[in-house]
Amino acid sequence: MAAIDDLVLELAKLPGIGRKTAERLTFHLLHQPRERISRLAAALSTVAERVGACPECGNYCEGERCPICTDPRRDAGLLCLVEEPSTVALVERSTGYRGRYLVLGGHLSPLEGVGPDQLRIGLLKRKMVDGGVREVILATNPSLEGEATATYVHQLLSGSGVRVSRLARGLPVGGDLEYIDGVTLSHAMDARQEVS
Amino acid sequence: MAAIDDLVLELAKLPGIGRKTAERLTFHLLHQPRERISRLAAALSTVAERVGACPECGNYCEGERCPICTDPRRDAGLLCLVEEPSTVALVERSTGYRGRYLVLGGHLSPLEGVGPDQLRIGLLKRKMVDGGVREVILATNPSLEGEATATYVHQLLSGSGVRVSRLARGLPVGGDLEYIDGVTLSHAMDARQEVS
Repeated sequence: MAAIDDLVLELAKLPGIGRKTAERLTFHLLHQPRERISRLAAALSTVAERVGACPECGNYCEGERCPICTDPRRDAGLLCLVEEPSTVALVERSTGYRGRYLVLGGHLSPLEGVGPDQLRIGLLKRKMVDGGVREVILATNPSLEGEATATYVHQLLSGSGVRVSRLARGLPVGGDLEYIDGVTLSHAMDARQEVS
Repeated sequence: MAAIDDLVLELAKLPGIGRKTAERLTFHLLHQPRERISRLAAALSTVAERVGACPECGNYCEGERCPICTDPRRDAGLLCLVEEPSTVALVERSTGYRGRYLVLGGHLSPLEGVGPDQLRIGLLKRKMVDGGVREVILATNPSLEGEATATYVHQLLSGSGVRVSRLARGLPVGGDLEYIDGVTLSHAMDARQEVS
């Protein structure tokens, strides 16, 4: 049936959802009251229509500017640089960070044709010119491209008088030393902290 | 943000999708062109608006009757009894079955208050009165409730002159004997077939 097949096809395009799971989800939805499906459809439509990028930080936002940029209680002197909006959500949920963000929109990747112009480096420069930022926290991914992006931004800001920091490297909490990779362990050793 | 949180909440209601996966899916969708999200929303709305139950077999259908009931090439003398529409899709995809179906809409479960009146037993009786059915194939789930439902239908049809069969029990193809449960193995032993 066209309508059901369409829904299965659309769901199967989502990451981690194969055809079989898409079918299971579709039949699950068909088992629910029809307004349940309509609510999911409405939630998707609202996101498609209303969510854009905040011009001040690049995070997703519904109105003119995102709630973090418009919150006067957030410290505008702290700027946390992340690759993706999902990292903003993660930092907000997990940490007590009360500064602002700048979402680069990815990482430098010459092979994929992503240079500084494809990221929000211009927005970062503008913020530096406007002044008011005391510290930039590099929170790019701990991957090769993330590190390269962090290094690029670090060089860009050197001499600007702005403090540049990055998230600490070390052992993940709850991890087992047996499964820690050597590079992380080496970082953890170099940054070892005195037990008081 | 309300729109994004709403979508995460709605997605997290799906089976096998927790809050973390719902967030990952949401951010994945936000990364896509907006019309990609709209297409999924539209597919859901279409299903919510158009898909109902076929009055002749209980399967999902978009129009008045389902494509299987309206197909004159399907053998109306064969009736495959299943619990859920998903089983119809599975049988259609995997087997060469060319008869019709009757979707009971669940299985007998006195504890959950599901008796014959909550299933499409009335529709089955009507089909028996109308005549034309030579064989009823019991394709309920090989679970306790599915077996009980099959037994109930079998008793209901005894004396009606209609042949009643059920799906064969045996070793699943590609399985390993080491992981086969004893009941299945016992069934496979009882129903062993001569090698010619």
